[in-house]
Amino acid sequence: MTPFVWQARVYWEDTDAGGIVYYANYLRFLERARSEWLRARGVSQLALAREPGVVFSVVALEVQYRRPARLDDMLSISCDPHWQGGASLMFAQRIWRDPADADLLVSASVRVACLDAATLKPRRLPPVIVRELSA
Amino acid sequence: MTPFVWQARVYWEDTDAGGIVYYANYLRFLERARSEWLRARGVSQLALAREPGVVFSVVALEVQYRRPARLDDMLSISCDPHWQGGASLMFAQRIWRDPADADLLVSASVRVACLDAATLKPRRLPPVIVRELSA
Amino acid sequence: MTPFVWQARVYWEDTDAGGIVYYANYLRFLERARSEWLRARGVSQLALAREPGVVFSVVALEVQYRRPARLDDMLSISCDPHWQGGASLMFAQRIWRDPADADLLVSASVRVACLDAATLKPRRLPPVIVRELSA
Amino acid sequence: MTPFVWQARVYWEDTDAGGIVYYANYLRFLERARSEWLRARGVSQLALAREPGVVFSVVALEVQYRRPARLDDMLSISCDPHWQGGASLMFAQRIWRDPADADLLVSASVRVACLDAATLKPRRLPPVIVRELSA
Repeated sequence: MTPFVWQARVYWEDTDAGGIVYYANYLRFLERARSEWLRARGVSQLALAREPGVVFSVVALEVQYRRPARLDDMLSISCDPHWQGGASLMFAQRIWRDPADADLLVSASVRVACLDAATLKPRRLPPVIVRELSA
Repeated sequence: MTPFVWQARVYWEDTDAGGIVYYANYLRFLERARSEWLRARGVSQLALAREPGVVFSVVALEVQYRRPARLDDMLSISCDPHWQGGASLMFAQRIWRDPADADLLVSASVRVACLDAATLKPRRLPPVIVRELSA
Repeated sequence: MTPFVWQARVYWEDTDAGGIVYYANYLRFLERARSEWLRARGVSQLALAREPGVVFSVVALEVQYRRPARLDDMLSISCDPHWQGGASLMFAQRIWRDPADADLLVSASVRVACLDAATLKPRRLPPVIVRELSA
Repeated sequence: MTPFVWQARVYWEDTDAGGIVYYANYLRFLERARSEWLRARGVSQLALAREPGVVFSVVALEVQYRRPARLDDMLSISCDPHWQGGASLMFAQRIWRDPADADLLVSASVRVACLDAATLKPRRLPPVIVRELSA
């Protein structure tokens, strides 16, 4: 199955005085792709928080920075989710400089827990997500 | 009365590829000084939100950018509040590069409204703030 | 002439613990629209910095915050530039929540100076910009 | 040897609409502690970039998010560097909510490469860093 891919432009806000994207800001690009993967499946995080009352929270991540992104670059950010246990998701993610496949900039794996919106205790993934990952 | 002054260091996160602090990030420094002015008066924004149930919200601002700040600069940020009507505050603020008075980098005026935490409608400033501004 | 409009989604990175977009982060949206206005005219800021050697720098701004943007909102950001003197531009900008015209969230005016990339002294706008604004 | 510790306050800018610090922003706190560890040893990153002409770049990191930080929290960020090969450093880092030791929020390991400022190729660590890590 081909992973979900989202695109984003690098603006001044993303860069630092080294002339490249600031290392923490790649995590913003990674999250945009995860949020858009959910949206593309018709899943609203705000709606999930109300019914059935679950929120997602990053509990661990690993990032390898291979090459820097620069101002005006157009990036492709992939998002390949896997079910891990009943209450968390593992996302394998990559960031390329467009045209895609040309330059792998960042690879990451991000573990996201599903939590009860009220108690913040771990909770089973909602059926809409389970269905998606079993497909 | 001498205005309240707070200090902050410029880190990589604050800069952009132009080699200077990104223009939006000076607003983060301005807010730190306003939050610390409140804290120095014993006012907790989280406590105010619970009792008497008020929050503050920036409704307008003007900024003049005179000289850029750079990585590793130590900044002094002043905060001179004035009572404006019964439900808002006007902060005159400045940012210098230390040693203070040497280099005026930014001057700003920021209007902050006092809102009811539940309805987000304008509401009179809490007595602790009024007392402070009348002193 | 209809102003240039650019769209942007609100992500977690843009919001704060008040549940709305952090006040400094609207300035990031405003800048994306200005950068995309230049790009739509075929102007690369990186190329301009090399030849003829000019960069742009925000020297003053005014912002009115009317209503807050929230997570998942799709925003339309307008950018209406005017020539001011020979060495600076004034941008009238607005941010709406989509569908456009429904909700005006922010209005701003941003003054941008044209500087020599080497000396950072004021310099006449490059012909490509002057042509655009005279059209 | 006790690790270096730096403190930082959580402001509105650091939080997101979940009411907690945004996951990418802990990386800003981690970097402040690494920069201050260098500064405490008399090392200026701007000076190193000129002479002997080296810069540092994060090449990989792992983060475990254990508990969230919230608005107004005072954080302690530790920074325990180890020499890894001749051209990179490994930092073991932790973030606590003050009072220190009370609540471990984040643990991380961050690998930083030493690069030639001109070519961006790997380069041996400067003597001032080697001396520090051998002490």
